[in-house]
Amino acid sequence: MIKQRVNNLRELMKSNNVQAYLVPSTDAHQSEYLPELWERRKWLSGFTGSAGDLAITAGKAGLWTDSRYFLQAEEELIGSGIELFKMGMPGVPAMQEWLKDVLKPGDSVGIDPRLISHSEAQQLRSYLLNWKIQLKSIEVNLVDELWKDRPDFPLEPVKPHPVEFSGESVESKLRRLREKMAGEGSSVHVLTMLDAIAWLYNIRGTDVEFNPVVISYAIVTSHAAMLFVKKEKVTDELRKHLDGLVEIYDYPEFREQLIKVSQSETKVWLDGGTVSQWIVDLIQNNCEIIYNQSPVTLFKAIKNETEIAGFRAAHERDGIPMVKFLYWLDNAVPSGGVTELSAAAKLEEFRSGGKYYQGPSFETISGYGEHGAIVHYSTSPETDVELKPEGIYLIDSGGQYLDGTTDITRTAALGKPTAEQKDRFTRVLKGHIRLAQTRFPRGTAGNQLDTIARKPLWDIGLNYGHGTGHGIGSYLNVHEGPHAISYYRGIGVALEPGMIISNEPGYYKAGEYGMRIENIILAVKDGSTSGGEIEFYKFETATLCPIDLNLVEKSLLSAEEVVFLNDYHQRVRKMLSPGLTAEERAWLENATRSI
Amino acid sequence: MIKQRVNNLRELMKSNNVQAYLVPSTDAHQSEYLPELWERRKWLSGFTGSAGDLAITAGKAGLWTDSRYFLQAEEELIGSGIELFKMGMPGVPAMQEWLKDVLKPGDSVGIDPRLISHSEAQQLRSYLLNWKIQLKSIEVNLVDELWKDRPDFPLEPVKPHPVEFSGESVESKLRRLREKMAGEGSSVHVLTMLDAIAWLYNIRGTDVEFNPVVISYAIVTSHAAMLFVKKEKVTDELRKHLDGLVEIYDYPEFREQLIKVSQSETKVWLDGGTVSQWIVDLIQNNCEIIYNQSPVTLFKAIKNETEIAGFRAAHERDGIPMVKFLYWLDNAVPSGGVTELSAAAKLEEFRSGGKYYQGPSFETISGYGEHGAIVHYSTSPETDVELKPEGIYLIDSGGQYLDGTTDITRTAALGKPTAEQKDRFTRVLKGHIRLAQTRFPRGTAGNQLDTIARKPLWDIGLNYGHGTGHGIGSYLNVHEGPHAISYYRGIGVALEPGMIISNEPGYYKAGEYGMRIENIILAVKDGSTSGGEIEFYKFETATLCPIDLNLVEKSLLSAEEVVFLNDYHQRVRKMLSPGLTAEERAWLENATRSI
Repeated sequence: MIKQRVNNLRELMKSNNVQAYLVPSTDAHQSEYLPELWERRKWLSGFTGSAGDLAITAGKAGLWTDSRYFLQAEEELIGSGIELFKMGMPGVPAMQEWLKDVLKPGDSVGIDPRLISHSEAQQLRSYLLNWKIQLKSIEVNLVDELWKDRPDFPLEPVKPHPVEFSGESVESKLRRLREKMAGEGSSVHVLTMLDAIAWLYNIRGTDVEFNPVVISYAIVTSHAAMLFVKKEKVTDELRKHLDGLVEIYDYPEFREQLIKVSQSETKVWLDGGTVSQWIVDLIQNNCEIIYNQSPVTLFKAIKNETEIAGFRAAHERDGIPMVKFLYWLDNAVPSGGVTELSAAAKLEEFRSGGKYYQGPSFETISGYGEHGAIVHYSTSPETDVELKPEGIYLIDSGGQYLDGTTDITRTAALGKPTAEQKDRFTRVLKGHIRLAQTRFPRGTAGNQLDTIARKPLWDIGLNYGHGTGHGIGSYLNVHEGPHAISYYRGIGVALEPGMIISNEPGYYKAGEYGMRIENIILAVKDGSTSGGEIEFYKFETATLCPIDLNLVEKSLLSAEEVVFLNDYHQRVRKMLSPGLTAEERAWLENATRSI
Repeated sequence: MIKQRVNNLRELMKSNNVQAYLVPSTDAHQSEYLPELWERRKWLSGFTGSAGDLAITAGKAGLWTDSRYFLQAEEELIGSGIELFKMGMPGVPAMQEWLKDVLKPGDSVGIDPRLISHSEAQQLRSYLLNWKIQLKSIEVNLVDELWKDRPDFPLEPVKPHPVEFSGESVESKLRRLREKMAGEGSSVHVLTMLDAIAWLYNIRGTDVEFNPVVISYAIVTSHAAMLFVKKEKVTDELRKHLDGLVEIYDYPEFREQLIKVSQSETKVWLDGGTVSQWIVDLIQNNCEIIYNQSPVTLFKAIKNETEIAGFRAAHERDGIPMVKFLYWLDNAVPSGGVTELSAAAKLEEFRSGGKYYQGPSFETISGYGEHGAIVHYSTSPETDVELKPEGIYLIDSGGQYLDGTTDITRTAALGKPTAEQKDRFTRVLKGHIRLAQTRFPRGTAGNQLDTIARKPLWDIGLNYGHGTGHGIGSYLNVHEGPHAISYYRGIGVALEPGMIISNEPGYYKAGEYGMRIENIILAVKDGSTSGGEIEFYKFETATLCPIDLNLVEKSLLSAEEVVFLNDYHQRVRKMLSPGLTAEERAWLENATRSI
């Protein structure tokens, strides 16, 4: 079936006179999580991972994905005729290098210009031009031409997100945005990222799983603000919410309005890293374009007082189902019958019905034993295994609450852990604590802190292959920029008070077990440092849930680290006990004992 | 005088029809250290610091420099009519922002295209275009038109640098370069950075103070290699050295040959970050250009076995004058009459005549008391002060040896230090030791290690305002890329075995004292880590010189840090004692005692 689809695509490539066609993982809004109707790469290749780009030529086909998905892609691509390229492995060519080798001068590479950001398109175009290969925008998506039973466009109503939770009115947000635009001499700003639009207009929706966003475009000028959403999704409530501030247009009208605005305004501000090449193609001959990060990106990342209060409250509430789950796990596993899938379902059951709860913030990673070593393991009925009273279990999950988004990972020893496991876990914990405790001068970028969490593993020649922390939205996407605590993302982006970020070092022993400790932290001013001219910041940990003491080797911890752990556990106990049953409370009492 | 010069320049600006003219700090080779005849900004503005860019308009003039030079620039610009812009301070506009504010649409900014890299020119041009201001290349340098008594072009002979020291023949270097060129489909590579050319052709010179480079250009094609140097500098020895490998042309012939080559070859490889806009202007209509970092940059940074052996030997030899100096200092200061300048001269006296010694690798920073807090303090007869038997003294110096380049900073307590001083110094030492001891996985970039050295100061709300380490050449420039251990330089550049780098955390209390501990370290493979699939690297410390124990507060050091310090001192004692007098040896014995 996959082979047939790919061959059908090759016919369309011929009629469009391109020798290669690219099917990226993303959609027209450069989303990480996509609505089903736009999961074209999944439909065409059969590979279901969240990241992976496909390139098809007359005789070959390749899929590029990262280490999270090597195993999964290998299995899913069997029989497809699509070759897997493991990104970042020695000797594996990048897609553009492969294209250069497979194609010849004069050839063209076709792409739907909606599915590539302007920056990426520029880079790819200039690379291919070195080899006299053209990058050609094809306005009609060739996969859509073949995909006859595509899922419908999501038409659930757009919901206003009240100021009670957002903490800032649309009017105020537009005012701040227009100030930034004026400062750059720009009179138009175009937004295509769904979370940016949701933030700006205080709207939420259910169009994409896990991310409470609305499929939409936005254009803001010095005198007008426009929202483009499918007209079926517009309610009277939404009209009232945006009345006098934002004009609502039907989603397909975006193209026409964008061109119209570009013809009447001189200087359009685009975020080249997030806006698609399609937008640039449409307007570049009509007006001047300035490329710069959207001001909304930083506005959204720095939470206001209302969002911070909601963030703390949501994390406190989210601790209750987590403790109930861990207590249940402790008792249920020895009786048998608990599997990775059933455990994940049980956790969702504990979360469901909680105050403000809207659903999970991403697909729960429930990994037992060697599955825990697969960083983005996705449990399925085919891979599901029973949890036995031995070995290591890792569960990474999160909730969307109206007042905040949570994301937490805990690692549990289901039996007696080995000395090696305790050593590794304690090193992960040391890194986690050191990062949580660090203070840093104003202006410090997240990438400057990544090594702090890694060092205890480095000390014995080990490491983990992912970043230490990602930004998180406020009842929005669980992955949010521009900041990160990572060696490869968020480089140079200073951490500001009000930024929310995860603290999640880990250790993964392939084929055996995986461990990760993830709490969500908030950057705040550090009142305790008096001296000098430099302002210092620190972190406040919001996640409340015990860290498995059975995995802690106390002799590896410094006195300071022991104090941190005991204080944290005391806080967990105090804050969560009131929401638990007597049995759960007794369990928590022990789980949070001082060491 | 300065005012007159600036006004004369304004006349030339008028006749060239530009409303602003830029006088950058650099030369046509994008050098950090310049030969005198190209120190145009210094001549025009009177500001003598090593970094600072000047912009002149009809009514205004501004100089942009960094925090190292704030004080110096303030003093030197008095009465010049040139406004000082302190880069990085809140509210201080960047030069381009200032130009945008001061000029109006339709205006032009003139620049000598030799004095700006292609990347910088592109960035500046596109910024100014947003405000409808043109960046205009003016081929004749307007400052040169006015500067009638410019120093002569340096004409000292070019000296071959023997394989005994370089460790690799020109033939082999050219072969490696041509392989890289072929891999990118390029048949021409143009080099303009003086240290890159010196490395490639195994030549050295005395054209620039401190940097043993030769003013030159180079063009390498798949079948030819050309060196462009003033013909007066060419000796028979040089001809013999390059015979059959490199054709020698007169320096002014570069322009013509570059154009000629660009007309006959299709794809020219330029390093856009280091090559001037002038080169691009000359050839961009003749051929295709690919922009990418020069392969020579990384070749040069990764030292071969001969260079590493020379590096170790040079550092061992350089320890002797350092110890002699510190011993002398201890005895001379109480007797009176020692000043910052005389101390620096004394150290140079100790270095002079040493095996392979060629001269200092940069201007010695000799800073007593509050002068020590000025990171790049430059001692002059006007600022010179006497060293008294109290307070803190910092000396940062280095030597050029035929087999290696050294750079070392020591801080000495000239009397009894305060508890605060001991605390700060010990924290600097902790950072220094932790960095020296760190092991890190292959692929780790220097910027990932910067925080390790900073953390002990962060812990009490303090910091230092410079990077932790810079790359160093092999009898070449004391500052060398592409790698660094810094939060702002060398981002993403992996540290490779064979890379030399400085380890120099510090602490500066404005108006009181400055402290820095600088040793030079070499990245090597870490044989001790057995486990896992990841390869680990570590550092070897080459600098040998005692660290002032009078400034160490032992209770702040971990047991591991004490062991490192004692082991280091033992090594210093063992290696250096044979080269010292009995008195010096006794002094060293005490200075390197175990704590």
